[in-house]
Amino acid sequence: MSNTGSSITIALDAMGGDRGLPVVVESALTVMKQTPELTLILVGQSEAVLAELGRHGAAPGARLSVHHASQRVEMDELPSVALRTKKDSSMRVALNLVKDGVADACVSAGNTGALMATARYVLKTLPGIDRPAIAAALPTIRGHAHMLDLGANVDCSPEHLFQFAVMGTVLAAAVDGNPNPTVGLLNIGEEEMKGNDQVKEAARLIAGSDLNYIGFVEGNDIYLGTADVVVCDGFMGNIALKTSEGVAQMITHSMKKEFMRSPMTRLAGLIARPVLKAFRASIDPRRYNGATLIGLKGIVVKSHGSADVFAFAQAIRAAVQEVRQSVPTRILEHLGALLQQRGTA
Amino acid sequence: MSNTGSSITIALDAMGGDRGLPVVVESALTVMKQTPELTLILVGQSEAVLAELGRHGAAPGARLSVHHASQRVEMDELPSVALRTKKDSSMRVALNLVKDGVADACVSAGNTGALMATARYVLKTLPGIDRPAIAAALPTIRGHAHMLDLGANVDCSPEHLFQFAVMGTVLAAAVDGNPNPTVGLLNIGEEEMKGNDQVKEAARLIAGSDLNYIGFVEGNDIYLGTADVVVCDGFMGNIALKTSEGVAQMITHSMKKEFMRSPMTRLAGLIARPVLKAFRASIDPRRYNGATLIGLKGIVVKSHGSADVFAFAQAIRAAVQEVRQSVPTRILEHLGALLQQRGTA
Repeated sequence: MSNTGSSITIALDAMGGDRGLPVVVESALTVMKQTPELTLILVGQSEAVLAELGRHGAAPGARLSVHHASQRVEMDELPSVALRTKKDSSMRVALNLVKDGVADACVSAGNTGALMATARYVLKTLPGIDRPAIAAALPTIRGHAHMLDLGANVDCSPEHLFQFAVMGTVLAAAVDGNPNPTVGLLNIGEEEMKGNDQVKEAARLIAGSDLNYIGFVEGNDIYLGTADVVVCDGFMGNIALKTSEGVAQMITHSMKKEFMRSPMTRLAGLIARPVLKAFRASIDPRRYNGATLIGLKGIVVKSHGSADVFAFAQAIRAAVQEVRQSVPTRILEHLGALLQQRGTA
Repeated sequence: MSNTGSSITIALDAMGGDRGLPVVVESALTVMKQTPELTLILVGQSEAVLAELGRHGAAPGARLSVHHASQRVEMDELPSVALRTKKDSSMRVALNLVKDGVADACVSAGNTGALMATARYVLKTLPGIDRPAIAAALPTIRGHAHMLDLGANVDCSPEHLFQFAVMGTVLAAAVDGNPNPTVGLLNIGEEEMKGNDQVKEAARLIAGSDLNYIGFVEGNDIYLGTADVVVCDGFMGNIALKTSEGVAQMITHSMKKEFMRSPMTRLAGLIARPVLKAFRASIDPRRYNGATLIGLKGIVVKSHGSADVFAFAQAIRAAVQEVRQSVPTRILEHLGALLQQRGTA
């Protein structure tokens, strides 16, 4: 389930994502070169995978193997249908490799709902965790924050939100080396309208634990870096995430438009080009690609479906880091301590 | 309740907002100059208001009067406390002027919760509307979209969401002259997780009406301009709005940082300055200041608490436009037609 030693093996769902095999194979070869302790297993239709490797002058070797899987989960396939009818999908076989201890983690750019349902079915949740969540790092003015749940659970009980807070704390501690990450609970600002009963009760649970709880945070706080971990239900998290994408797109669009307005503004754009490029890189969502399906007995990283080589490589790196930090084991330990504390309180 | 004639009277809560009187008075004088048919009533502590007018060399006249109110609702005051103990607040007195037909609309930068609670108490909701909502125009790649509810109602029934859709349609038609605005219901994208029962049932109600319903939209669609009207509950709406603010702040911060990095990048920034200025103006949230408390028997516009003169003036202009278009009357008519249609269906 975890690996703190030097060698790390990761199974890649080679058929997942909108761009599929070409992106997965090229990213795999890139990250493998940069990470000497890494072994990769490309899971998918073996002929196609071998052909794609061949296109890069590459072939299976000591640190790269191909594991055949005859099926592919479509991006718009219903999770329940994928679970029932795609038992030999690249996604499912990659998850099986994690379950069987052959791989330390799995990375997929496939259908989010199907990945979550299949991962939950194959790997099961950690003891003490009722529901896995989707967690991701988001850029902030101060650095980045971890936010969960981003869409796996539409309705969450206060206990679920509490478990998310524990998992987020462990994730931030593991990934950032932050010994005592602050936790904020996403809410709205109006005093008397403040949150529903579920959020209020979750606040009570988190405040009563040893987590570094700083109280309610609002939507703008996510990007101001007010908290290291932002906890919310999957509905809110998904709305916040997608809204952020929209705002960033609109702003980029608006900036381009201004620079294209006239020959003079185009010239200014040319002169400012290196700065604008650095700016775009600093807010590039691809840098933050790789959300974690957290709370499972194993490490599963979800790449954005439309990820390119740069983005998918980031998702593989995120998986490597979680393996190095044994995230699931640490969640288990932290949660065990908290539950014991609660039991004896 | 509505005014389609040439003369428009608006009551301004002169004591509301973080910056209070100086901003309200200067904005009032500016907009009054630009809008010949406009009469303004400054509601607040009359000595202070008169002194502030004096600072601008202005005094009450045919189109500008001062109406005394001895109290002020504090920005962090609980709505219930304000409602009970601040019967002579500038906010409440301004709303009373609307109720008594002295003013056609009221604008306040005060405490949102108190304004909503007091407006609801003083003006009452329109027949057929269970709950007023907060609606605002947001910039999109294509122009702008109207979104509601932005925070007045944490929990909403499908029927409430349906009423929001009607109100948003009327608002978009009135403000933009759009004869058939498209309506989208905010939801998340994962197929099998798609929404809770409340959102699904609301979709059924809206789809079954004569509204121009285009289906579910996601967070990013808000800013892509996918729908002219985006409907959601106040919790989601507030999270989306505040998150947007945070993203925009982070992006602006990041851009500044890149241009400040070295003498070379500073020079580039200097050259690109007019373009960057135009860009910032195009996404300036102050341009969109002035949210409508919609669904009341009267027009109430809420300015951002921290509004400056430019922003508060925009809120006054928003109120003027709603008066011109008789928004409450039009909601009543549209809703009446829809309810009749439903009754006979």
